[in-house]
Amino acid sequence: MKKKGQDKKGFYSFCEFPSEKKQKTLKNRNRLYRFSPDGFSWNGIKSEAYKNKGDDWQRIIRHNIIGVHGETTRFHLRYFEIAPGGNSSFETHKHEHVVVCIRGRGKVRLNRRTVELKYLDVLYIAPETPHQLLNPFEEPFGFFCIVNARRDRPKPVKKLKT
Amino acid sequence: MKKKGQDKKGFYSFCEFPSEKKQKTLKNRNRLYRFSPDGFSWNGIKSEAYKNKGDDWQRIIRHNIIGVHGETTRFHLRYFEIAPGGNSSFETHKHEHVVVCIRGRGKVRLNRRTVELKYLDVLYIAPETPHQLLNPFEEPFGFFCIVNARRDRPKPVKKLKT
Repeated sequence: MKKKGQDKKGFYSFCEFPSEKKQKTLKNRNRLYRFSPDGFSWNGIKSEAYKNKGDDWQRIIRHNIIGVHGETTRFHLRYFEIAPGGNSSFETHKHEHVVVCIRGRGKVRLNRRTVELKYLDVLYIAPETPHQLLNPFEEPFGFFCIVNARRDRPKPVKKLKT
Repeated sequence: MKKKGQDKKGFYSFCEFPSEKKQKTLKNRNRLYRFSPDGFSWNGIKSEAYKNKGDDWQRIIRHNIIGVHGETTRFHLRYFEIAPGGNSSFETHKHEHVVVCIRGRGKVRLNRRTVELKYLDVLYIAPETPHQLLNPFEEPFGFFCIVNARRDRPKPVKKLKT
């Protein structure tokens, strides 16, 4: 029998997650997040601010796809999108990043180097590497970023070590 | 100064990893795995057998992208590709899967249900869910599969529980 919040295939819809309490109830359920090419978004995943604070970033949004909806994975899967002219913070931390470009292209500053990231290129950013993602191009630059679920807080990079 | 094995941007090439010993030496280095659309592959990542044993799978290969080249991430990123008519094992385990379709489309059997997976759809497979990925279509079906680095061994599913 179909339970409340399930679709015809038995999948739970995201409308079912208004509160923390309900998230706990529906821990570890199979879930299908359909991709919508029109808005470059996933059904049930909302677009959020990249960060709540700071002025060292601009024109960047995030979608938290896996890791905040009752999953117990040791990793989180997020999608970030940088509009033309935008950039993430120039920062460093102990945890690693795995970045996969899935829309347009962008630049990544890694310490004193800069590399271009194109469709499906995979970049591993090692611990304590000062890094920043930028979009100097004319199309949106979108990428998955996979991180450990337990991770340290990023620190802004003021000056590179010599 | 450019060290042995580095390209002009300072990235280490994968040719530098013939032995376990060298892998340990080059732990946690920034790495860029360029995608090659022609072969649907990544520079420095080899195509491997899906499994070394068993006869419950066919026409499926894997690329271990992140997790086996000195990274200390708590997760592994792999790319699997199923040729037309192929399938993975029908199996179950305690660890979770996050599957992202990036080439063609396929079907996923989840317990008694089957869902179709299309471009950039994200599927979360919960612990202990009997599952199998299949390609009944005419084009290759390729997907990322992200898993915890520490995980239990899959068990074949002979019969579904009632």
